[in-house]
Amino acid sequence: MQYSIVGSGNLAHSLAKALNSSGYTPKFIHSRNEKNGRTFAKRFGFTFENDLKNFDHKGFIFLAVNDDQIKAVAGKLPKSEAMICHSSGSVSISAISVKHKRRAVLYPLQSFKTKKTISLRKVPICVEGSDGNTTAEINQLANKLSDSVYQFNSKIRKQIHLSAVIANNFSNHLLKLSFDHLEKFDVDPDILYPLIRSTYRNALKHDPAVLQTGPAKRKDQQVIDEHLRMLKKNRSLQKVYEVLSKSISNSK
Amino acid sequence: MQYSIVGSGNLAHSLAKALNSSGYTPKFIHSRNEKNGRTFAKRFGFTFENDLKNFDHKGFIFLAVNDDQIKAVAGKLPKSEAMICHSSGSVSISAISVKHKRRAVLYPLQSFKTKKTISLRKVPICVEGSDGNTTAEINQLANKLSDSVYQFNSKIRKQIHLSAVIANNFSNHLLKLSFDHLEKFDVDPDILYPLIRSTYRNALKHDPAVLQTGPAKRKDQQVIDEHLRMLKKNRSLQKVYEVLSKSISNSK
Repeated sequence: MQYSIVGSGNLAHSLAKALNSSGYTPKFIHSRNEKNGRTFAKRFGFTFENDLKNFDHKGFIFLAVNDDQIKAVAGKLPKSEAMICHSSGSVSISAISVKHKRRAVLYPLQSFKTKKTISLRKVPICVEGSDGNTTAEINQLANKLSDSVYQFNSKIRKQIHLSAVIANNFSNHLLKLSFDHLEKFDVDPDILYPLIRSTYRNALKHDPAVLQTGPAKRKDQQVIDEHLRMLKKNRSLQKVYEVLSKSISNSK
Repeated sequence: MQYSIVGSGNLAHSLAKALNSSGYTPKFIHSRNEKNGRTFAKRFGFTFENDLKNFDHKGFIFLAVNDDQIKAVAGKLPKSEAMICHSSGSVSISAISVKHKRRAVLYPLQSFKTKKTISLRKVPICVEGSDGNTTAEINQLANKLSDSVYQFNSKIRKQIHLSAVIANNFSNHLLKLSFDHLEKFDVDPDILYPLIRSTYRNALKHDPAVLQTGPAKRKDQQVIDEHLRMLKKNRSLQKVYEVLSKSISNSK
């Protein structure tokens, strides 16, 4: 079965690697950045195609583009027998024009930032199709890539995406804030590594609500106030500290 | 060398286990909760002692009590040859009365919440002593417990503790918030586990600033606004979302 990809970013790389390994045949690649696109084409065996109008074949066309590009790109693709499939958690399936008969979503629940391709085998994939047959077909494809495939509609997928933003983007940012703070005092952030390792290991084994420790959990206002004073020159982190401490204190 | 402990919580357990294994001899244990204290005494070979006035021996007396109890407990201990040692990141060494000649801090940079004792071997320990000899001695003891011992004064230790609160307590709370959100939509939080695992693994391998993804990093105001709308019935989480997104957008 043939497939094409629009986009040549980190997700496109991981997707192409996984699809090639699963026996799908690369057809066209298009990318706004032609140089990246041509390198990508060479690496994975695609034909670089400048004009989206020529994306006309059976099989699958994956949109691995920014969320705000999905609608425009899908609109430019010609009517064909291909299934048009975007990969965003936060965009509804309805962003793909109904002129395409078979519309789908394949959302890998992972953060694609590091340059190396990520194996999708252990990555949960949420799929959705415009009708029963399409859903069955994208589901079948996803099952070849990953051990964990889930069917959710756009509404629930958006909630999952929101939860992922909280768990991944926000946690990652807290680590950055915490490392930056240590570096201000010439302390090597390495000192936090064992704590961070145990934080997530424990959270995956126990209920994070039960694991909660710290001044906010103990409602130790004296320590909280001292921390807020210590952050008086970093208003942004002070605000983060205040809001999260309040949220911890108020949570059940 | 003899040692005593005041307190019978999770830290006291891990400390007693590690000290016994390192050849230190348990002497007295005192705990406000006498039942817990007596169980603890039996488990680790201490004598339960109700009166702090009787804590009079050579060696070490560890205060594994709440931050706000350190000053009072240290005040009640008799003058002796023992080194009085608290274990808090956020409390200055000066909370221990100067009537005690040898004052110290042994702060294990770890979250002690799960009931099982934690091996201190891989836990960084920050030590401080009231004078050169005391520092050397608490440093020597800490080195028997852990592979990573650091000497920091109270000022820097407090900054490390603040960073640990951000990295551990706040991250853990975000996981709780994210799991709670999913459960509202009947989605099993298990779906987030691979993402969380990679979040922390990556952050320990790369710079978390470089790893940052998501709508706030992309300054994708449309998705941010939609997420804020999706959280309109959860004002507390909405506020957390807003403040962290702002902090990500503004960070370099």
